[in-house]
Amino acid sequence: MVNSSTLMKKWGFLKNSEQKTESNTAVDGVLTLLMSNLDISDRRPVIPMARGEPSANFTCFGKTRMAADAISEAVRSAEFNGYSPTGGVLSGRRAVAEYLSQDLPNKLSPDDVYLTMGCKQAAQTILTVLAGSKSNILFPKPGFPYYEVFAQSCHLEARHFDLLPEKDWEIDLDSVVAVADENTVAMVIINPGNPCGSVFTHQHLKKVAETAKKLGILVIADEVYDHFAFGKEPFVSMGVFGSITPVITLGSLSKRCAIPGWRLGWLVTHDPNGILKEHGIIECIKGYFYVFSSLPTFIQGALPEILGKRKEGFSLETIREAANSCYKGIIDVPGVTCPSKPEGSIFTMVKLDLSVFEDIEDDLDFCLKLAKEESVLVLPGISVGLKKWLRITFAMDQSSLEDGIKRLQDFCRRHSKKA
Amino acid sequence: MVNSSTLMKKWGFLKNSEQKTESNTAVDGVLTLLMSNLDISDRRPVIPMARGEPSANFTCFGKTRMAADAISEAVRSAEFNGYSPTGGVLSGRRAVAEYLSQDLPNKLSPDDVYLTMGCKQAAQTILTVLAGSKSNILFPKPGFPYYEVFAQSCHLEARHFDLLPEKDWEIDLDSVVAVADENTVAMVIINPGNPCGSVFTHQHLKKVAETAKKLGILVIADEVYDHFAFGKEPFVSMGVFGSITPVITLGSLSKRCAIPGWRLGWLVTHDPNGILKEHGIIECIKGYFYVFSSLPTFIQGALPEILGKRKEGFSLETIREAANSCYKGIIDVPGVTCPSKPEGSIFTMVKLDLSVFEDIEDDLDFCLKLAKEESVLVLPGISVGLKKWLRITFAMDQSSLEDGIKRLQDFCRRHSKKA
Repeated sequence: MVNSSTLMKKWGFLKNSEQKTESNTAVDGVLTLLMSNLDISDRRPVIPMARGEPSANFTCFGKTRMAADAISEAVRSAEFNGYSPTGGVLSGRRAVAEYLSQDLPNKLSPDDVYLTMGCKQAAQTILTVLAGSKSNILFPKPGFPYYEVFAQSCHLEARHFDLLPEKDWEIDLDSVVAVADENTVAMVIINPGNPCGSVFTHQHLKKVAETAKKLGILVIADEVYDHFAFGKEPFVSMGVFGSITPVITLGSLSKRCAIPGWRLGWLVTHDPNGILKEHGIIECIKGYFYVFSSLPTFIQGALPEILGKRKEGFSLETIREAANSCYKGIIDVPGVTCPSKPEGSIFTMVKLDLSVFEDIEDDLDFCLKLAKEESVLVLPGISVGLKKWLRITFAMDQSSLEDGIKRLQDFCRRHSKKA
Repeated sequence: MVNSSTLMKKWGFLKNSEQKTESNTAVDGVLTLLMSNLDISDRRPVIPMARGEPSANFTCFGKTRMAADAISEAVRSAEFNGYSPTGGVLSGRRAVAEYLSQDLPNKLSPDDVYLTMGCKQAAQTILTVLAGSKSNILFPKPGFPYYEVFAQSCHLEARHFDLLPEKDWEIDLDSVVAVADENTVAMVIINPGNPCGSVFTHQHLKKVAETAKKLGILVIADEVYDHFAFGKEPFVSMGVFGSITPVITLGSLSKRCAIPGWRLGWLVTHDPNGILKEHGIIECIKGYFYVFSSLPTFIQGALPEILGKRKEGFSLETIREAANSCYKGIIDVPGVTCPSKPEGSIFTMVKLDLSVFEDIEDDLDFCLKLAKEESVLVLPGISVGLKKWLRITFAMDQSSLEDGIKRLQDFCRRHSKKA
């Protein structure tokens, strides 16, 4: 028999465990670090340009009243108190299928739709399903850090392809081919782009599908910012190319309706040629939802109402103005450049020229000092896979945005080397 | 470069993957199997005695209107639209801490509480946190099958200790000591018991804590049926013994308020001696919630209101009558015995004597034939780790329950060997 002193030995590994490392590099971990560096004696409001959270930062944006009414009605109806059926309530799955089919050549069926706890659970699901002893998966760099964490948690090897800042952050397809091998199962694209603010063209997405087909892999398309395309390119769903290679889209209402905390997400399979079915992937996705909890049932029950009225009260004009204002403001910040004007999502990536600064070590150091001195929160590029860059969100009201950019300018001028 | 024919090779493993196997033995998988065996030409209503889902089966039970009003108010308030803070909204965590503290010697702080997507996510969280390369964890047999699945998904070895039917399903503590070794990190207890309908005494729980202390392991107490104790023993929370060995309780409002689909759960640490903190477990739990989504924010925001009024409209009398009626009915069923009268939760385990029957192979065969011939759904013991047993829920209205027991009697008589 062992005694209680073995407790420490057994649990010692936890102190340096993967979980802890993950938490420090994932967005929330870095945010906690930045927030702990804020100077509480600064009387100015904190400008939150780090996390894309429209409802909190951006009160002028999104109409959530309608969605709240729909949820309220569903929860009071007593129709949605029981466990959710596997994959979700039929009416909710049908609403998502109909909604997304508007942009697709092949109409989706409710059976192609699985309701999830936000886009995060949708991502977790497909990564868990695809994980195998030797499998690897391809992620964009820069990308969204939770993909790395989910891959790590299900023992799926993560490899990276490049996005090209000088080409509006298009995917470097040669780099995709270069990192793929016979154990590669899928590639993830995020369009409109987080963290880059890019919107891929129809032509580029077709090339992505053709490359994936050549490699014998499927495409996982994170379209959580689906209709956040406010520049020259319209949003095109990757599902359009499902007949070239199987596509799995991950989506959510959270951003569009400014209700990120409601976790209204989905996973959708585009498989007109039945390849996912043939290879058992569909069966495995269902298996996942047999076991893991999905979205609270009454929220699923509110989806038909919410999706039916979703276009009401939503204007791209506000977000377009914010993006432009942010882009213009950054031009005047010394040591910081924005290679590509944001045309989608609610983010932009800006490059740091560290040689301009007197006392900034790297992007994390920049963000920590900026938090301390100016009460402005910005995400260091390291959090999204790109050192010496920053990710900035412009999803906030105009005056906060201008204030934030102004403080960023002051900070960079103050830290610039004297001529 | 590989070509598309490698797709099949790569994904071939999925056809026989763990996910699929899991789905077939987990409750939902078996239920799907049973339901596909129902005879649609039978005009009688299906009697659902397999899944413990009070809201659907048991309309006389639970008052959910108050909870619906609280959710409705929270979602309309627009106060809970943003991402949830790590671990949950403070007011929700505080409400759970205050609610559970009523039954504890040491008062809980909101920091001890993490809000989760039902009890399932709470279980997943702690298993993920405790998983290490050589760790193992101890589960009760019979038990709740999702624990096995979660352990498998995070590569944590599952071992089993016995529950003793002849001793009101108490834990066989000798069997706990026999299966534990230096890599054992925790034991899971479910009290009140699913699937056994047992309620552990204060004395027995104290012995459990002392055994765990000797082994240097923590106790994970699934208390999802917390106040469902309607027999001679009152419910005692395992948290009472947190000063003997660290305890983690998993709980939920789903069963009590008859709203299983709402996923209102929590994970609570009882660590008055700071052992979990010292060994980094608390940090790891926080790390988990940095990464994985928690409960939709507005549902968290409704917790103070729901917990404040939780005792209204809830009566143990209804469930006590149902349990008694079920127990008495089973006495008259040939080939079936109930060794211990149910005193808690909403389930009872009954033993099959296969020698009585003419043409029943095993418990799964029994359940499949019962579904087909009598439109009664009952869970085979194999699903909860005990062959040749059945798990029956009595959480339904009196007339359905009587009808179900009657059909069970008819079925067993019909299949009994002729004298």
